[in-house]
Amino acid sequence: MRVAVVGASGYTGLELLRILLRHPRFEIAAVTSEQRAGRPVGDAFPALRGQLDLAFQAAEAGALAKQADLAFTALPHAASAPMVRDLRKAGVTVLDLSADFRLRDPEVYARWYGEHAAPELLGEAVYGLPELHRKAIREAALVGCPGCYPTSVLLPLTPFLRRGLVEPAGVVVDSKSGVSGAGRKVEAAYLFSEVDENCSAYKVGHVHRHVPEMEQEASAAAGADVHVTFVPHLLPTIRGIVTSVYARLRGALDAEAARGVLREAYAEETFVRVLPEGETPSLAAVRGSNFCDVAATVDERSGTLILLSALDNLVKGASGQAVQCANLVGGLPEDAGLREAPLAP
Amino acid sequence: MRVAVVGASGYTGLELLRILLRHPRFEIAAVTSEQRAGRPVGDAFPALRGQLDLAFQAAEAGALAKQADLAFTALPHAASAPMVRDLRKAGVTVLDLSADFRLRDPEVYARWYGEHAAPELLGEAVYGLPELHRKAIREAALVGCPGCYPTSVLLPLTPFLRRGLVEPAGVVVDSKSGVSGAGRKVEAAYLFSEVDENCSAYKVGHVHRHVPEMEQEASAAAGADVHVTFVPHLLPTIRGIVTSVYARLRGALDAEAARGVLREAYAEETFVRVLPEGETPSLAAVRGSNFCDVAATVDERSGTLILLSALDNLVKGASGQAVQCANLVGGLPEDAGLREAPLAP
Amino acid sequence: MRVAVVGASGYTGLELLRILLRHPRFEIAAVTSEQRAGRPVGDAFPALRGQLDLAFQAAEAGALAKQADLAFTALPHAASAPMVRDLRKAGVTVLDLSADFRLRDPEVYARWYGEHAAPELLGEAVYGLPELHRKAIREAALVGCPGCYPTSVLLPLTPFLRRGLVEPAGVVVDSKSGVSGAGRKVEAAYLFSEVDENCSAYKVGHVHRHVPEMEQEASAAAGADVHVTFVPHLLPTIRGIVTSVYARLRGALDAEAARGVLREAYAEETFVRVLPEGETPSLAAVRGSNFCDVAATVDERSGTLILLSALDNLVKGASGQAVQCANLVGGLPEDAGLREAPLAP
Amino acid sequence: MRVAVVGASGYTGLELLRILLRHPRFEIAAVTSEQRAGRPVGDAFPALRGQLDLAFQAAEAGALAKQADLAFTALPHAASAPMVRDLRKAGVTVLDLSADFRLRDPEVYARWYGEHAAPELLGEAVYGLPELHRKAIREAALVGCPGCYPTSVLLPLTPFLRRGLVEPAGVVVDSKSGVSGAGRKVEAAYLFSEVDENCSAYKVGHVHRHVPEMEQEASAAAGADVHVTFVPHLLPTIRGIVTSVYARLRGALDAEAARGVLREAYAEETFVRVLPEGETPSLAAVRGSNFCDVAATVDERSGTLILLSALDNLVKGASGQAVQCANLVGGLPEDAGLREAPLAP
Repeated sequence: MRVAVVGASGYTGLELLRILLRHPRFEIAAVTSEQRAGRPVGDAFPALRGQLDLAFQAAEAGALAKQADLAFTALPHAASAPMVRDLRKAGVTVLDLSADFRLRDPEVYARWYGEHAAPELLGEAVYGLPELHRKAIREAALVGCPGCYPTSVLLPLTPFLRRGLVEPAGVVVDSKSGVSGAGRKVEAAYLFSEVDENCSAYKVGHVHRHVPEMEQEASAAAGADVHVTFVPHLLPTIRGIVTSVYARLRGALDAEAARGVLREAYAEETFVRVLPEGETPSLAAVRGSNFCDVAATVDERSGTLILLSALDNLVKGASGQAVQCANLVGGLPEDAGLREAPLAP
Repeated sequence: MRVAVVGASGYTGLELLRILLRHPRFEIAAVTSEQRAGRPVGDAFPALRGQLDLAFQAAEAGALAKQADLAFTALPHAASAPMVRDLRKAGVTVLDLSADFRLRDPEVYARWYGEHAAPELLGEAVYGLPELHRKAIREAALVGCPGCYPTSVLLPLTPFLRRGLVEPAGVVVDSKSGVSGAGRKVEAAYLFSEVDENCSAYKVGHVHRHVPEMEQEASAAAGADVHVTFVPHLLPTIRGIVTSVYARLRGALDAEAARGVLREAYAEETFVRVLPEGETPSLAAVRGSNFCDVAATVDERSGTLILLSALDNLVKGASGQAVQCANLVGGLPEDAGLREAPLAP
Repeated sequence: MRVAVVGASGYTGLELLRILLRHPRFEIAAVTSEQRAGRPVGDAFPALRGQLDLAFQAAEAGALAKQADLAFTALPHAASAPMVRDLRKAGVTVLDLSADFRLRDPEVYARWYGEHAAPELLGEAVYGLPELHRKAIREAALVGCPGCYPTSVLLPLTPFLRRGLVEPAGVVVDSKSGVSGAGRKVEAAYLFSEVDENCSAYKVGHVHRHVPEMEQEASAAAGADVHVTFVPHLLPTIRGIVTSVYARLRGALDAEAARGVLREAYAEETFVRVLPEGETPSLAAVRGSNFCDVAATVDERSGTLILLSALDNLVKGASGQAVQCANLVGGLPEDAGLREAPLAP
Repeated sequence: MRVAVVGASGYTGLELLRILLRHPRFEIAAVTSEQRAGRPVGDAFPALRGQLDLAFQAAEAGALAKQADLAFTALPHAASAPMVRDLRKAGVTVLDLSADFRLRDPEVYARWYGEHAAPELLGEAVYGLPELHRKAIREAALVGCPGCYPTSVLLPLTPFLRRGLVEPAGVVVDSKSGVSGAGRKVEAAYLFSEVDENCSAYKVGHVHRHVPEMEQEASAAAGADVHVTFVPHLLPTIRGIVTSVYARLRGALDAEAARGVLREAYAEETFVRVLPEGETPSLAAVRGSNFCDVAATVDERSGTLILLSALDNLVKGASGQAVQCANLVGGLPEDAGLREAPLAP
């Protein structure tokens, strides 16, 4: 199966290449980058030197359709939609890693990102979180792959929302992300001397673009409007997200029962690991892998459910999840190319 | 004024020396360490080479009373109480950095640390958070200096509790601390290869020893039992704590009014900086300094007050705060020896 | 092919498991650890949870011989030799990652490590650097896998020594290593708060145990006694070694010719990448992979050859190289299980 | 004494402010930044909030001459010379932190930086390394403060050159620098995700701009042309330089004698600490301080002198050294404002 990586000069693009290079069934047929067109991929990414004998090309849907059956689009928000539309018209199956096909309501999209360039495709797009939407993904031709923060929130929280165990209002999410979550943006805020030995919150409350996506999926799971108070932090790490979710329990539920909810929900899942009592998710245990580790406990004095999760934002939070979806779309084993153990230490 | 540092082989001891070396009025008269007794201080701490012409001595209250008027005790929990008792008997004023004189109720202490070795002193000890207890500290002969986490929680939260603006139940605290908060403990969990590029929660819910201390002081401020759900995290940084506090507002309060509460409470304070709209506390802005930066905002959709803070756990969270208290006890300017700007970048 | 990992509780053991888990032909049949015997591997290494359904066992050569055809021994120096002897007696092929079978001369070994427990095996052992000793490794039943520093020195330097292009005396090696090179030792020097934001040299001159190994192999390549002045440094990174080698040229050789020497030597090698003019080896380009990147330039004013290299100390510097050797011993493709691209960023 | 900081928006400017804020005799009278003119200093540097009640102003020599007696110029190379010329004309004493007044020969300057804008001042400028040129600095009105790398090389090496103990040819310098050495440049190479867990050499051989400066001063000390082969590395730390110098001894000299040379040279110096046998300079022991730690040993087998040094590039490598020079120029105690102990851990 020939695949193209469209917009491969950022970190999610590079991570797609890393995963696809070891994939048993996907062959990298084309790699695009406007600014690097013509240059060998190994020159731009020293890590890939000697691994991939391809040069970047400019992105043109017609040409790509001849080279590949399936495309991963890793373009910036808003730039992605027109390219996806052209690729779809040319018959290419698309796994989109931007935010352009995550939100179902074009008005909500417009509020956060500006007018949508291809709203007619929103109906066909499926939200690419396999653990929640596996069946729909299998039949999709366009998958809007989730953001990294929403994946870290929805995997632990959804089972409780589906069962009506927590109040939909007043959910608090405190997340901490490595710097690669901001992509390869060359801004002063992401300089080593600014980030190292540092940590701070940003876009506090209801102002991060991942909030509507969390609330859309959480509300669908709850069958009621879920409201999320979201405080992301920048961590002095390259990769990884750890998230704490605090929700009010509707009735009595002890810690062991809470863990049972997670275990039952994810008993058959390869990539969600439910941790036993006394263990907490850590970045080190998921680095470079497609795992999302989750844990639950309860502060019974106040009836607060505490959910913890950890994932690698570039893998389960982006490129790994996209490949997982592509495997489903392509009828392959869901873990093809994704069995690699985490890089620890 | 001659001062002693009792138990100076850990990080808070080292930080006390760093601050006291530049203090205009305190003279370091004695430095103790059982395991290093007889060795020059500069040998144990290469950073201090050539700065301090003293050797470690074993800790003996009678001898110390002849050398110093005031002692900082930086011994492990439980080991501190008997030494403090002896020093007090010998007439030495004590600033204790352990947990032994933070909790007023010996039964609460016993639940978390084991039986107290000098419960008769609990009545006389003052909780050493100058911004809350300045008057009492001025007259104290024994100060129990706060833990690093409680300082980061109480400074932003107390003004709201005192005014009855938030519900005392259901306060959620999500903290992130650098590794020096664990002291100089030689354990596998604190090895560089385990901590770097990593982050995880630990002692989740109601199991960290700083919880009773937070609840004691928060309840006193609220005039009602405050319950705190506490989730600390280990950050891959040497120094610093960032804390998020989530509390339910009792009535309507917008973000600007919330900031006003902090500004009013801390208008006269040197070491608490209330950040303007759009800024968030960061470790880099307080590193090596005695500042605690605080910020407030509100998620109005759910009536959630969000408080953020940052401090250096070894300075405002330990040794700097102890010196601030000692300045009060000694009738000196409160910021003597503590005016140093943060080390940034 | 069934393989055992003997002494799997350290970082090289963990790295062996990570690589072997994805190996197409090796099956992990036994994993030993005295201190963890009986515990599931996934419990000890959270990263491996759900990946390997085995418990640690105590190491006993007879039992291991029934379980496995080939063993990787990752025991401490001196502890390894007796176990290797027993395994060899029981007919198991051994890839030893300790220092016990790297030095050919038992007296040299004794000077650095104490008396050798199985000197009779030194004649049969082959030095496991495939790029230098491929043929001998293919026929070996006991391979002494190189140290991480020597690999980083010998790969760039050997081609010049073999051709007699540099003076054998006065070779200077300045190396910088991540902390995992010290293994999982729980010592104060390796605590995060001591290592982060820090860097320093250690064991300066002729006192590091890797020096005799470098000199043995370098001298064999030169056909003359090579003397190495070696200064290793501890870097605030988990993985990786970058090395600079400074040698005096015997005759005129410009930078392009020096690069030509490397290109010619390694034209057919999968795991040694010779960088073009203007690029320098970096840890990020090899992290988690079996690559060793090398570069050469010349300071013509003083006739100094400058060689640079980078590798991941746990992969090409230890476990990856051991698997590469095992592939040769087993008649498999040399890169089986080792094709994984570096983890970047 | 009123001082101005000209070009205060970078890291050396910020560090000057940090030091000057605690200086007992210098008063910060003006702070300039073209891009931030009109903004309060505390807004641009959150760490300085509440510490300095000044706004940035544009740099104009006439105005500055009315405000200040002495100016620290921390402008980019080439931009500095014209401003320095104007300040000197207006009668202001200048401590220049750029490269513009370090090289005595305008032709050498031109080769590395382009034509010099004020060559007439080169005769009057003094190289601001107090340990080597104290007397001249005391009488200077224009001081060209050394680069960070040259300081780390010249302090350990000069005593041996002055005594003729090493060969002037074939000196090898292998340096490792934290990222703040590159200033606050917003380039992809300095992003956290590119630098963290990474290390690599750059500008290898004879291509770094600090080489002519090292060679100028080293040659003057040796009374002969000294040639330096220089390989700098980028370290994943914010601050600090560690340097290894390798030189060929002219005659027999053992390690203890080599240490004796350093001890004798620096017996009276406050800021150069000669380490005893068995200890090596480390970034942690000098962080945030004006110390340069040095050590010496000898590899007698090859007659190689090994010198090691560590300093904080922003303090002894830039702003601290400039203040040390300013103290000399102003007739103050040389360590005024510079007595602060290193920030460790």
